[in-house]
Amino acid sequence: MISDEVMARIREEMASYNGSGVSVLETAEGSPEYTEIVDGAEKLLRELMNIPQSYKILFLPGGADMQYSAIPMNLLSEHKCADYIISGQRSKAASLEAKKYGDIAVAASSAGASPAFSTVPETKRSDFRPDADYVHICFNNIVYGTKFHYIPDTGSIPLVADMSAFLLSEPIDVSRFSLIYANAECGIGAPGLTIVIVREDLISAAHKDYPSAMDYKLLINGENSAATAPVWSIYVAKLVFEWISSLGGLEEMKRRNERKASFIYDYLDNQSYYTAPVDKKCRSMMNVVFVTGDASLDKKFAKEASEAGFANVGGHGSVGGMCASIYNAMPAEGVEKLVEFMKKFALENPKLEA
Amino acid sequence: MISDEVMARIREEMASYNGSGVSVLETAEGSPEYTEIVDGAEKLLRELMNIPQSYKILFLPGGADMQYSAIPMNLLSEHKCADYIISGQRSKAASLEAKKYGDIAVAASSAGASPAFSTVPETKRSDFRPDADYVHICFNNIVYGTKFHYIPDTGSIPLVADMSAFLLSEPIDVSRFSLIYANAECGIGAPGLTIVIVREDLISAAHKDYPSAMDYKLLINGENSAATAPVWSIYVAKLVFEWISSLGGLEEMKRRNERKASFIYDYLDNQSYYTAPVDKKCRSMMNVVFVTGDASLDKKFAKEASEAGFANVGGHGSVGGMCASIYNAMPAEGVEKLVEFMKKFALENPKLEA
Repeated sequence: MISDEVMARIREEMASYNGSGVSVLETAEGSPEYTEIVDGAEKLLRELMNIPQSYKILFLPGGADMQYSAIPMNLLSEHKCADYIISGQRSKAASLEAKKYGDIAVAASSAGASPAFSTVPETKRSDFRPDADYVHICFNNIVYGTKFHYIPDTGSIPLVADMSAFLLSEPIDVSRFSLIYANAECGIGAPGLTIVIVREDLISAAHKDYPSAMDYKLLINGENSAATAPVWSIYVAKLVFEWISSLGGLEEMKRRNERKASFIYDYLDNQSYYTAPVDKKCRSMMNVVFVTGDASLDKKFAKEASEAGFANVGGHGSVGGMCASIYNAMPAEGVEKLVEFMKKFALENPKLEA
Repeated sequence: MISDEVMARIREEMASYNGSGVSVLETAEGSPEYTEIVDGAEKLLRELMNIPQSYKILFLPGGADMQYSAIPMNLLSEHKCADYIISGQRSKAASLEAKKYGDIAVAASSAGASPAFSTVPETKRSDFRPDADYVHICFNNIVYGTKFHYIPDTGSIPLVADMSAFLLSEPIDVSRFSLIYANAECGIGAPGLTIVIVREDLISAAHKDYPSAMDYKLLINGENSAATAPVWSIYVAKLVFEWISSLGGLEEMKRRNERKASFIYDYLDNQSYYTAPVDKKCRSMMNVVFVTGDASLDKKFAKEASEAGFANVGGHGSVGGMCASIYNAMPAEGVEKLVEFMKKFALENPKLEA
């Protein structure tokens, strides 16, 4: 979802970027407009997230999934071992991809929770192998509606986090992580863009046998500019960064997102028609999951919600139920209308007593 | 560059795609709009290029450079050997990347031409190793302004061609190639999209140790939909396919492009201020390279051309000179104006006699 303000700007500049007479879609690599967009986006992101200078920011093409391979390729050392915390299907997919390149262990998993992945695993430092090259977590789990309510203590082991659908929704202490990556498509709205924020000292050398497009060393040095995301995607991201900044930055985003999420969760906690299956302490502020307890009613809800203009409320096939994604761009009124719709649906579709 | 017609459509549908009330930028994977865009784009491309059913079409994220790794990963057999024809820096970069994965030989090269790469190598079947898994060529060489004027005869060895900046500029017999790939950014105008057209029987199995995002088998089976290009990019490509189709398809594109290219080449051949260094039989219709013979005049030309509204006419740093890119979307008047500018510049900047 993209905010109305950002969308208006995109439409305006589609014909002529910043008075240049050339559309952003036609901006050539290396032109002054190109440099202004890429450098400007990086500077804004660094300010918004308070990213230390010792971290590099990469704007890469493709989905976050491409980093499932790039991360082990770049971070595994000679002895090749890393620990993964499994909190949903994305972290599982990341660990399976990493297994192609090294000795990957599951340090903790919430697969056994009831329902599965309705909470995130609690961990302590001793859960991790002391010689692990890194520990990987998925910070926000979209389809399960969970979020890490704590930052795992990995001691001196670098912590790597997939922050897709979480990045820029609230402040986060970047210095607690060695590498943060996020698909900028869902939460930020920039198509085809993955953001990687990586501690530079972690990347020591280019790798002889890895694809150049996945080699952080080449990417950081700008030796593989062809592997940079299209300027169009970076342009949309930059507009979103400016918009967040103009509203007051990540503290203000957090305040707004907490208010929106509370509005739905408060309703869910004070009725009995819907169930919110997620462990309260790790509820996601971005993705609110709820079920009616009846698969056919869930289906009916998703269909009618879609017809009423609530796009993509249906839960993911593998999990079922509903998942309301209330990203930064969703206004408070959108959430209020959704709760109204939920109330109306509950009244109109009484459940048969078991 | 994007045609005015396509740009108008993009602006119109930016707020609401096809009356859906949702911007294309916000189209979710798996929605009816998503399916319509992706399937529609594939169908149109298959019609335009007359692609046999035995070929699969992939819409992938990232630049064509990512396929420099994916191609050897997917096409090299157990004995791992392939031949590359070197006709410029892109084919050279592709061969260097491939060397990470197998025994790569240079079957022919025009590096020794004068000036370097001002022609494409002539080849015969005996230039290729009989046990090569494939032969790779770069069909159109942007910075050198050359195009293959023939399709190499590789016998039963699969022929792989990078057709970036050439695809859709004229008809091509797809059945002569086993794999065609192209960055859709320069010639077609779809940011962040690479098109891969591959003979399905060539792709036998998923590879255990390759990144999933580069595994054609998984991509063809749709088992890695996360690795598909963003729907936004496919949407822009689909609009361009529709536009080409409405004008009369690739035969008509060829007629227009020949007319535009002839207009510049005819001028170049009938004056003495500029030199067109490219071997006449392999002149590119998309990228017209010319030089004044004086590096400082070349620089002045590029600067003044840019100020006069001719974007990106400056040649690439490594080659120098000028490169006029006259893709499908460039109207005939654009070429006429450029020639007027060239005439004016020649008059205003007389060269000192040596």
